[in-house]
Amino acid sequence: MDLSFFSAKITAGLAQLNYGEQPQALYEPIRYIMALGGKRIRPLLTLLGAHVFTDELDPVLRPALGVEVFHNFTLLHDDIMDQAPLRRGQPTVHEKWNANVAILSGDVMLVRAYELFFDVPAPLLPTVLRRFSQTAAEVCEGQQWDMNFETETQVSIAQYLDMIRLKTAVLLGFALELGALLGGASAQDADHLRQFGTDIGLAFQLRDDLLDVFGDAATFGKRVGGDIVSDKKTFLLLTAQAQASPAQQAVLARHIGQPVPDAEAKVQAVRAIYDELNIRPQTEARINDYFQDALHHLERVAAPADRREPLRQLALELLERQK
Amino acid sequence: MDLSFFSAKITAGLAQLNYGEQPQALYEPIRYIMALGGKRIRPLLTLLGAHVFTDELDPVLRPALGVEVFHNFTLLHDDIMDQAPLRRGQPTVHEKWNANVAILSGDVMLVRAYELFFDVPAPLLPTVLRRFSQTAAEVCEGQQWDMNFETETQVSIAQYLDMIRLKTAVLLGFALELGALLGGASAQDADHLRQFGTDIGLAFQLRDDLLDVFGDAATFGKRVGGDIVSDKKTFLLLTAQAQASPAQQAVLARHIGQPVPDAEAKVQAVRAIYDELNIRPQTEARINDYFQDALHHLERVAAPADRREPLRQLALELLERQK
Repeated sequence: MDLSFFSAKITAGLAQLNYGEQPQALYEPIRYIMALGGKRIRPLLTLLGAHVFTDELDPVLRPALGVEVFHNFTLLHDDIMDQAPLRRGQPTVHEKWNANVAILSGDVMLVRAYELFFDVPAPLLPTVLRRFSQTAAEVCEGQQWDMNFETETQVSIAQYLDMIRLKTAVLLGFALELGALLGGASAQDADHLRQFGTDIGLAFQLRDDLLDVFGDAATFGKRVGGDIVSDKKTFLLLTAQAQASPAQQAVLARHIGQPVPDAEAKVQAVRAIYDELNIRPQTEARINDYFQDALHHLERVAAPADRREPLRQLALELLERQK
Repeated sequence: MDLSFFSAKITAGLAQLNYGEQPQALYEPIRYIMALGGKRIRPLLTLLGAHVFTDELDPVLRPALGVEVFHNFTLLHDDIMDQAPLRRGQPTVHEKWNANVAILSGDVMLVRAYELFFDVPAPLLPTVLRRFSQTAAEVCEGQQWDMNFETETQVSIAQYLDMIRLKTAVLLGFALELGALLGGASAQDADHLRQFGTDIGLAFQLRDDLLDVFGDAATFGKRVGGDIVSDKKTFLLLTAQAQASPAQQAVLARHIGQPVPDAEAKVQAVRAIYDELNIRPQTEARINDYFQDALHHLERVAAPADRREPLRQLALELLERQK
């Protein structure tokens, strides 16, 4: 079955959501950020996770949209914290309105996300809500670690991987687990799909790190090298710092954490070190490891191969993307 | 039964809550704001609401604490929006840490508040969660109206009363409704207790407005006249503006919304107009109206008078308070 069948369901479902009307300053920003678009990967994973076990997708739609509303809530609040001016090429909510409006609209978005789960069958409701809440708290933990790392001098690769697991991967894992549970999966299968999603999430974030440095400026959509310019402690930088010779350490130290008179020169210099240390193939190998782990979990799900195929396809698309 | 019996349960329950450990910057602010204290009125209302119908209060405790955690979440985020330096005489979270920490700690507090409701009996879970979510959204709406009113020139008394209903009263109403539902009340009795709580909440907020102007500085705890100095559109000011003669309008217009060279003179001048217009007795009459409405709902609850007595006592204490 074509992925566009599932995507169409999500688009139609989102168009029907009613977040509230008055006061407008509270609810208009929610409609605004939800209308900015995005790949809607998370609700897609929920529908595909359910589709492994059932053709009855209508009862899965609202919870799937709950994951998407929650995700956009985190973007809204993260953008305040990161003082980001743009989101998907448009002004962020705190820029278009103000920080207070962004805080409060985000708060009510989190409430609306919860509400989208309340229709799940009564026997599943406590489990779904507990798992969603645990995931939501973990996403907040990931964001706090990410902010902490900005000012910490020593961040290990393991700490970085744990941060992206919390900030990004666990929500993809939950999206799949949710679909599995609602589709009637066994606890074991739901857990395999959760781990599939988490591994895909880790691979996806490392791919993002890689594209930021080695992506094609024409297709990437963001400025290539942005992570290097902002001294972001990514998997690439942390790996380079761990493997650099004293001479390479010195080059890195001259550029990272220093005022940038020439951003392009900084990107070139750091990328040269990455090339010397084979950071790109090392990162690609790590991405592939996570992808293989993900497939391993998918294969262990007790369902016919053709029911699992759309998930394998989506994972492949996500990791082969050029933007 | 003495109210201290219920208060002790709440204090003990709060001491046992575990919000999370790592990262500390996420969870320490939650412990900090929860430890600042306060009257714990909302969980007390939940326990007393349940106690009208049952002696089995242990299953009611965690949801009651959920209401208190939610209330403190709103204080945490409101303090950022209001740029408040102090909360209960101590630095606010965004002052002691920073705004980002305050946003994110608040977010995870809202998640933890939800989690405290998940243990309620399965047949009640959807209703409790829907009503909590509706109330939570209404509290956000009230805060947004309150912020809107700061810059709006025309605010009616009806709009003001609706704002305080949303921002303050509905949560007291929900606290009681929750207790009633968990105590096994009929839908009708739960609704009477909800309306009792909402009316008490409105009376409570008007009492707050009154104390801000006419309270005894020694016992009030806050600076008397603060609302006048900050041009806050309270019930008192809006009533005075609605009833003032042209001459009194002119005096008000000279002080309200103007730069304040002498705060004490401003307070004196506005208070003099309040005295001329009998604003104090008018406000007291309105408070008493709400109190009588509240008692009317309490009396219609199908339970022995002695089971309702602690609620009547608490309401009386709240409205006779001098601070």
